[in-house]
Amino acid sequence: MRFNFDLQATDGRARTGVISTPRGDIRTPAFMPVGTAATVKAMLPGSVRQTGADILLGNTYHLMLRPTAERIERLGGLHKFMDWDRPILTDSGGFQVMSLAALRKLTEEGVSFKSHIDGSRHMLTPERSMEIQRLLGSDIVMCFDECPALPADRAAIEKSMHLSMRWAARSRDAFGDRPGHALFGIQQGGLEEDLRAQSAAALRDIEFDGYAVGGLAVGEGQEAMFGCLDYAPEQLPHDKPRYLMGVGKPDDIVGAVARGIDMMDCVLPSRSGRTGQVFTRRGVVNIKNARHADDPRPLDEQCTCPACRSYSRAYLHHVFRSQEIISSMLLTWHNLHYYQELMSDMRAAISQGTFVEWTAAFATERAQGDIEPV
Amino acid sequence: MRFNFDLQATDGRARTGVISTPRGDIRTPAFMPVGTAATVKAMLPGSVRQTGADILLGNTYHLMLRPTAERIERLGGLHKFMDWDRPILTDSGGFQVMSLAALRKLTEEGVSFKSHIDGSRHMLTPERSMEIQRLLGSDIVMCFDECPALPADRAAIEKSMHLSMRWAARSRDAFGDRPGHALFGIQQGGLEEDLRAQSAAALRDIEFDGYAVGGLAVGEGQEAMFGCLDYAPEQLPHDKPRYLMGVGKPDDIVGAVARGIDMMDCVLPSRSGRTGQVFTRRGVVNIKNARHADDPRPLDEQCTCPACRSYSRAYLHHVFRSQEIISSMLLTWHNLHYYQELMSDMRAAISQGTFVEWTAAFATERAQGDIEPV
Repeated sequence: MRFNFDLQATDGRARTGVISTPRGDIRTPAFMPVGTAATVKAMLPGSVRQTGADILLGNTYHLMLRPTAERIERLGGLHKFMDWDRPILTDSGGFQVMSLAALRKLTEEGVSFKSHIDGSRHMLTPERSMEIQRLLGSDIVMCFDECPALPADRAAIEKSMHLSMRWAARSRDAFGDRPGHALFGIQQGGLEEDLRAQSAAALRDIEFDGYAVGGLAVGEGQEAMFGCLDYAPEQLPHDKPRYLMGVGKPDDIVGAVARGIDMMDCVLPSRSGRTGQVFTRRGVVNIKNARHADDPRPLDEQCTCPACRSYSRAYLHHVFRSQEIISSMLLTWHNLHYYQELMSDMRAAISQGTFVEWTAAFATERAQGDIEPV
Repeated sequence: MRFNFDLQATDGRARTGVISTPRGDIRTPAFMPVGTAATVKAMLPGSVRQTGADILLGNTYHLMLRPTAERIERLGGLHKFMDWDRPILTDSGGFQVMSLAALRKLTEEGVSFKSHIDGSRHMLTPERSMEIQRLLGSDIVMCFDECPALPADRAAIEKSMHLSMRWAARSRDAFGDRPGHALFGIQQGGLEEDLRAQSAAALRDIEFDGYAVGGLAVGEGQEAMFGCLDYAPEQLPHDKPRYLMGVGKPDDIVGAVARGIDMMDCVLPSRSGRTGQVFTRRGVVNIKNARHADDPRPLDEQCTCPACRSYSRAYLHHVFRSQEIISSMLLTWHNLHYYQELMSDMRAAISQGTFVEWTAAFATERAQGDIEPV
């Protein structure tokens, strides 16, 4: 079975469809929970699946350092290792080596660095990144690229983009022909429309199974990001999945889908679950606030996740304050459930041609803010 | 429906039966996982039930301080608060106020102390302990007692035992008549057989629904504890449940059951799950040892818990080393599963009259030690 993208409906620039892989279908727009170190933190894989997730993201940088890609390969691959038999997308390590590793040295060849875990020296190149992602058994492999922080001057963005395009060609060559597995290119070019166009053209020449909009959500703010998304996705092929990396908050996600994005990932729902930030239809709830201490109501009356079905805000407040592990378990589950329901609602609205109305209702409900205190 | 104990079979001094409560049956010998702060750490209640637990233990001391018994009562009681609808036994707070609280002052009236959480001042008396356990909605309430650390001189043990017996009478009076709820007395007397006998006689005079052997597992060692259990349970009524508080390791539990104990509780399986200590039929496995890093085998080939069904030792080693929450979740689940299976096996052996043979096989298998490294 081949990797395939079936674009089923559009509504404005918003799209819905299905990515088929040998490990299962991915309904788009898709949100991918992040399973950095071979676990979506505080969740069992079966629970992640229950939230509606079709695909997880794994981090090449973390896994290459611990337990190492070679070890995971010996143990039968990442799917078996972490007990997730559906699709996995792995990033290339490029972004995290720049944000986490020490003593980085960037050359035409790649990036050498010291591990943030044990200080050992490593080198990531397009070829090594492809090898690691193959050892992990990733279903959707990302090109190795360089992602400069914003703001940056145009010359730096341009130079970096051209390097990433040369690395994209090397990634393509190193990836080879792997039926059932996909390789995605990553568009760069910062907030410069012409550089984004040049990057898109270079990637189209190489040909990929999907295309990511890279280099966003790195500090530029939502307005600038949406400004870029007003043109960047349209520069990429219409018939392939478009992936916005590292995004985002619920309203970022809705705005990105409105601009033609099909896939996203972010640590926000899982990380926020551990810090007591809860996403609801009526905005963000901070469970550690004293107002919840006596509140017998669930986080969200309409939510069907275990945290909302079985527990009061008072309980969730208590276990968060008491630093109990169940707090991270329940709030992460709720947040991932919320994100997947958001995607599901958007897919339905796009199919029905009511995405504009849905978006307006989404914004109105959020603007109400949380329910009144008891 | 009344609280009732149906003793169904004995084998030597080992007993098996069923405690009936309005919230469900408790098969004995029973192991009660500890849910200190209204959660069995790192577990959802549904998962705790899946391991085979019929009853949980809650800690009066922790809950009275946070979120407070009054708050839990307003929220509908502890069962609803923590989403566990089966029986809950609560301790009296007596043991933990002596081990955790600061600036304790013991009088005939009770114990005054400062909270280890926020330094606030509180008082626990037999009457207040009964009130708190009623507010929590506990199914099995424990008398408020004093538990001296061992070793202690006979005079101190004797004086303390008599105080506990006066408190037991006050607890009985304060508890009143609560159909469907049970009150257990607690035998004291240290390692002195005659003091234990006096304590048992005092408790029998007052009359309780069940009787705990208190004051053990406080540093005296297994041999001394078993020495005491050679006579202490037999001093208590035959037709009521006998509960050994705070025990223990698997071999402690087997030895206690062999000596006529029906109920036990301990933080060991859950706490060990968080520190990487794993209980198996072949003894204790330390998952952080490097020998597991490449081991594709489960912790225990025969175990049916999620950690053993779905994960390799290599994965469990990786997530423990990476300090991932899933490590605590999976290892706690495994340990609680192991403990409940141990209880289930003992109940079957006692029913079949093969408890001596079962005990020998248990010891032989443990003595083998862990499987050979790969």
